[in-house]
Amino acid sequence: MIRITRRESFNAAHRLYNPKWSAEENYKVFGPCSRLHGHNWTLYVTVAGEVNEDTGFVMDLKKLKDLVRRVVIDKVDHTYLNEDVDFLHGKLPSTEIFANEIWKQLEPILLRKYGVQLFEVKLHETENHYAQYFGE
Amino acid sequence: MIRITRRESFNAAHRLYNPKWSAEENYKVFGPCSRLHGHNWTLYVTVAGEVNEDTGFVMDLKKLKDLVRRVVIDKVDHTYLNEDVDFLHGKLPSTEIFANEIWKQLEPILLRKYGVQLFEVKLHETENHYAQYFGE
Amino acid sequence: MIRITRRESFNAAHRLYNPKWSAEENYKVFGPCSRLHGHNWTLYVTVAGEVNEDTGFVMDLKKLKDLVRRVVIDKVDHTYLNEDVDFLHGKLPSTEIFANEIWKQLEPILLRKYGVQLFEVKLHETENHYAQYFGE
Amino acid sequence: MIRITRRESFNAAHRLYNPKWSAEENYKVFGPCSRLHGHNWTLYVTVAGEVNEDTGFVMDLKKLKDLVRRVVIDKVDHTYLNEDVDFLHGKLPSTEIFANEIWKQLEPILLRKYGVQLFEVKLHETENHYAQYFGE
Amino acid sequence: MIRITRRESFNAAHRLYNPKWSAEENYKVFGPCSRLHGHNWTLYVTVAGEVNEDTGFVMDLKKLKDLVRRVVIDKVDHTYLNEDVDFLHGKLPSTEIFANEIWKQLEPILLRKYGVQLFEVKLHETENHYAQYFGE
Amino acid sequence: MIRITRRESFNAAHRLYNPKWSAEENYKVFGPCSRLHGHNWTLYVTVAGEVNEDTGFVMDLKKLKDLVRRVVIDKVDHTYLNEDVDFLHGKLPSTEIFANEIWKQLEPILLRKYGVQLFEVKLHETENHYAQYFGE
Repeated sequence: MIRITRRESFNAAHRLYNPKWSAEENYKVFGPCSRLHGHNWTLYVTVAGEVNEDTGFVMDLKKLKDLVRRVVIDKVDHTYLNEDVDFLHGKLPSTEIFANEIWKQLEPILLRKYGVQLFEVKLHETENHYAQYFGE
Repeated sequence: MIRITRRESFNAAHRLYNPKWSAEENYKVFGPCSRLHGHNWTLYVTVAGEVNEDTGFVMDLKKLKDLVRRVVIDKVDHTYLNEDVDFLHGKLPSTEIFANEIWKQLEPILLRKYGVQLFEVKLHETENHYAQYFGE
Repeated sequence: MIRITRRESFNAAHRLYNPKWSAEENYKVFGPCSRLHGHNWTLYVTVAGEVNEDTGFVMDLKKLKDLVRRVVIDKVDHTYLNEDVDFLHGKLPSTEIFANEIWKQLEPILLRKYGVQLFEVKLHETENHYAQYFGE
Repeated sequence: MIRITRRESFNAAHRLYNPKWSAEENYKVFGPCSRLHGHNWTLYVTVAGEVNEDTGFVMDLKKLKDLVRRVVIDKVDHTYLNEDVDFLHGKLPSTEIFANEIWKQLEPILLRKYGVQLFEVKLHETENHYAQYFGE
Repeated sequence: MIRITRRESFNAAHRLYNPKWSAEENYKVFGPCSRLHGHNWTLYVTVAGEVNEDTGFVMDLKKLKDLVRRVVIDKVDHTYLNEDVDFLHGKLPSTEIFANEIWKQLEPILLRKYGVQLFEVKLHETENHYAQYFGE
Repeated sequence: MIRITRRESFNAAHRLYNPKWSAEENYKVFGPCSRLHGHNWTLYVTVAGEVNEDTGFVMDLKKLKDLVRRVVIDKVDHTYLNEDVDFLHGKLPSTEIFANEIWKQLEPILLRKYGVQLFEVKLHETENHYAQYFGE
C-alpha cells in the first residue's frame, strides 16, 4: 500500500456568516471572518492503493490531477464560495466543512472509476491554518 | 546604506471590474478575475538608510511593523478591496495599482517621521504573481 | 471527525547539554549542538473533533491561536530555552522533549475547557528536522 | 513514543518508460513523463521510538542524516535513476516505487543498528506530487 | 513605472559537459554536475511598464503567462536540455546561459507585441542556486 | 553580465544589547530582542560577472559555496554571535550590521581570487525580516 498526493491551488472569496443569526451575532462569533474576504486556498488530495507493476502507479497522477480540477477546482476557483459553488449551497464555508464537502465530491468517483481509496483531503486556508478530513 | 524589509500578510477579496464597462466587456478583458474572488496577499516593505551606530538599526523593525500594520494591514485585512478600503476608493484594485497606493500611504510617514526612504513595495497576489513599485 | 491545525512561530536559543556530564562528554555526544545557538522554531498544533453545525468549527481557530500563544509562545519566544522557560526546568530541550512538554501544556486545557482532543504536536527546529508527538 | 523526521534533497533525471512496451505505448501511458527529464527530489525519513533520557533523542539526528546520505543520497544524487542506481536496477523509477525501494534500504539498518523503527518514507517529485510508504 | 512578475516551473534533465573536452576533463571541471541529472526549474519573468488606467495592468498577466508557456515552458518541460531544446542547440545549459537564452526568446516579443520592457529573467536550478539576467 | 546567487543557512543565538547602556535602557530600546534568543539565519550571496564560454559559469558555484562556508558559515553556525565570532567582536549583531560584516569577509576574496564582483549580501533573520547590503 502506497499513498500518493496531488496539490492544487485556487483563489476564492468567502465569509463566515450564519444566516440564522443577526449581523451582530455573526460578528460576535466570527469576528472579522464574518466580513467578505478571500484566500489562496491550497488543496492536498491523497489516495491509497496498490502499485500497478506495469506502470509503477497507484493511480495515474495526470488522471488524479484532471479529476480534482474538473470536480473541484473548476467549480471553486475565482468564485465567492458562499454563493457560487453548487456543492456548497446552504452550507457555511468554513475550512472544516469545505474539506468535508470536497471529500464527498471525490471519494465515490475515485473508488468507482479508478479503484483507489481516497485517504485524506487537506485544505489550507492560509499557511497558518488547515483542516484535514479522513472520511471517518 | 542598508536596506531592511518587513513582510506582512493579509486576506482580502477583490475583483477586476471597471465600472465604466458592461459585465460582458469586463469578462472579455479580465476573464474569471472579473468575478468576486480572493487571495492571501503578501506585502514586502523595504526601506533604505544609514545604520545607527548605537542600535545597529536602519529603522527599529518593531516601528516599521507597527506602521505597516496600522496604515495598511488593519485597513485591508478581511475586507473586500473594491468597497471597504478608503485609500482604494474609486480605483481598480489590480496588484499594480494596489502596490502603488500602498506606497502612497507609507512613503511620506517613513520619510517625515522616521527619516528613512521607502525603497520598494512588493505585493504578492499569489506565489506566481507579484508587482513591485519603486516610486519612479 | 475533522482535524484542524494552527501554525505558530517563535525564536529561541538553546543548547543540547546534559549537566550530568563534562563539557567534553557533551561535545562528544552532541557535537556543535552542545554549544549555545538558536532557531526559528515552527509549531503545528492539531486538534480533532466533531464539527459544530452552527459555526462550522471543530474549535474556534481564534481561541486555539490565543491559547497556544498564551500557554506556549509567550513563554518561549525570545528566550534561552535551557534557563528561561518554567515548563522546561530541569529538562534537556531537545526537539523531542520540547514537543512532549508542549503537549503537556496544551492537552488538558483543550480537553477540559474546549472539549476537543489534542491530536498532534509537531515542532520544527529547522526545515530539515522536526519531531511529532501524538500522546502515546 | 516520538517521531523525528530528517529532510534531504537530491537532483536526478528519470523517465517513466516500461521496456516491455514500444515507445508509442509508453507515450500513450506516460505522456511527456516517458521522455528523459529530471527533478529536485525531496526525501523525508521519519523514525519512531522512545526518547533516551540522557540525550533527549529518539535517535541521534546526525547519525540519521549520515545514514540517509550514505545509503540513499550518495547513490542517487546527480544520477540518471533508470540506469545509475544499484537498488533501482530493473525497476520503473516512479515516485511510488522509488519511495518503496528507499524504505528497503533504510528499514533493516535503522532497526538492527540503531534500534528505531522506520515509520515513513515520503518522497516529493515536485511540490505538487509526492508518495508515502509506511511499510505495510 | 511598475514591475510585474510571473513565476512558472518545469522539470528537465541536463548535464554540464563541454564536448570540446574529454570525459575526465569534464569531471575535473564540473564534478558530479557533468553526469546526467535533473531539476525542478523555477522561472521568474519580470516586465516593467506604465499602468494602463482602464485595466490597472502593466500587461495582462494571462497574456504574459501564455507567452512564457508557449515560447519557453512548452519547449523545455519534460526534456533533456542538452539535446531537445531548439534555442539551446550548441550551447552549454548552465543556469547562467539558460537564463540568457530565455531572455533572447522573450525580450523582442514583449517589446514588439506587448509594448513592455523585459526587466529580468531569474532562473532557479534549486532553492540554493539561481541566476539573474537583466539584458546588460 | 549575469548574477548568480548561492543560498546557505545556519543556526545561531544572539541578543540586541548595547554594552554602553544599562539593562533597562536596552530593554527600552530593543524590547524582547534584548534577551538571549536565536534564529535559523538564511544567507544569500550574489556575485556578478561575465559568463566564461567554456564553462558557462560566472563563477564555479562549488567554489562559491566552499568560500561562503569556509569564510562565513563555519564561523557562525551553532554559535552565540555576540561572543563567539571573530569578525563580529565589539559589534552589535543586528541583521544590518551582520550583513555588512559578511560583505567585508567575502568581497575582497571574491574580487582578488575569483575575479568576480560581490553584488549583494542578503541576510534573513526570519521569513518576515531581512537586510540587504550592496557595498555602497
